[in-house]
Amino acid sequence: MSLEGSAKIHQRSFEKDLDEINRELTLLGEMVEKAISSAILSLKDRNSSLAKEVIRGDRVIDEQELKIDKLCIKYLALKQPKAQDLRFVTSVMKIINELERMGDCAESIARQAMFLATKPAWRPLINIPKMAEITEEMVRDCLDAFMKHDELLAQQVIKRDEEVDQLQGLIYKNLLQDMIQDVNNIERASSLLLVSSKLERIADQATNICEDVIYIVSGKIVRHKDKIQLEIPL
Amino acid sequence: MSLEGSAKIHQRSFEKDLDEINRELTLLGEMVEKAISSAILSLKDRNSSLAKEVIRGDRVIDEQELKIDKLCIKYLALKQPKAQDLRFVTSVMKIINELERMGDCAESIARQAMFLATKPAWRPLINIPKMAEITEEMVRDCLDAFMKHDELLAQQVIKRDEEVDQLQGLIYKNLLQDMIQDVNNIERASSLLLVSSKLERIADQATNICEDVIYIVSGKIVRHKDKIQLEIPL
Repeated sequence: MSLEGSAKIHQRSFEKDLDEINRELTLLGEMVEKAISSAILSLKDRNSSLAKEVIRGDRVIDEQELKIDKLCIKYLALKQPKAQDLRFVTSVMKIINELERMGDCAESIARQAMFLATKPAWRPLINIPKMAEITEEMVRDCLDAFMKHDELLAQQVIKRDEEVDQLQGLIYKNLLQDMIQDVNNIERASSLLLVSSKLERIADQATNICEDVIYIVSGKIVRHKDKIQLEIPL
Repeated sequence: MSLEGSAKIHQRSFEKDLDEINRELTLLGEMVEKAISSAILSLKDRNSSLAKEVIRGDRVIDEQELKIDKLCIKYLALKQPKAQDLRFVTSVMKIINELERMGDCAESIARQAMFLATKPAWRPLINIPKMAEITEEMVRDCLDAFMKHDELLAQQVIKRDEEVDQLQGLIYKNLLQDMIQDVNNIERASSLLLVSSKLERIADQATNICEDVIYIVSGKIVRHKDKIQLEIPL
């Protein structure tokens, strides 16, 4: 075989490994998106069995993270990539960590859903479904931005994090008002407060991923932006 | 120069790079420990200027994380380490991420401290100082366990996470009780609820680091253990 031919095979094998990492990452992303949307649905529908499914499913997400982590370590050890491929793989290792935590947040929301389902039905969930909708979009878009190296999309996701923070501020105020009005609301309102803080955390995690995307694509560091100052400190 | 001599120089240069990473990591750890203890002190003493210091200091923590991240990427690119060194460096990249987030949590606690300082003084902080004390020890010990490859210490830290979770359960119940007793407590109790959830998150992050330590030292996967089930889902 010519040297050139051997180099080509080497190149193809590189791509095959990265393709596998990409594929498994996409799968993890889909699992996490599903967990978040199911957790919110279980909350809206007071559906304890769906909530249980989310809680049980978290283990599969954890295993998928470990699987990708191992693929990345193997790739680094065997292929010793440089420049772009090195940045890609180390970024994947960070992103899977964020995704796994998003899964944990979905699990926490599902636990609150189970708890609230044991209490008398209450009021509409104020802005929580709206906050969840934006958050779910952010999760989808941050993975898209990573896969497509789309800096503009990454910037848009980061921008939306402010919306989520504003919504959380509103929800916080509303729930506090509910508690003050009627002590019977306190337990359920505190539970919804935790739900909103988990959604806010998921949005933050999507923002972290986008900040990494921008760094990979443009070298610009936009991480650790200043949090907007809400009237009520969250 | 003999080949052997050249190999020795190569080896020494490896160690120098890893030493630098180690040193910078230790520094980051110290910054984060300081941020957490100052945040809690600002809460206990109703000291807004100390709280402001913690908030301003978060930027330095963020910069330190980025500095170490770059050192690690450079090391991977230039030295193409294998086996233990590879695992060490990729672990450092994860750990600095955890530490940076602990810093964010400290900042959030400081924001709550500032908010609470604007309100009339209230009651003792129930179990929050105790929870903070354990959490601070966990942070110190998880870094020690990492530096010394001490599996036993790592296991002890993980064990303490249960204590923190139990304390948070108690705090949650107490604060809910306070809110029910007097609506004037609701705003302040909600703020302390957020403080306790940040402490719980820091303890979780220390646990994550220890789970990594155990993996590095023994190859055992203890990540993603089942969370103990609290009466009130958190």
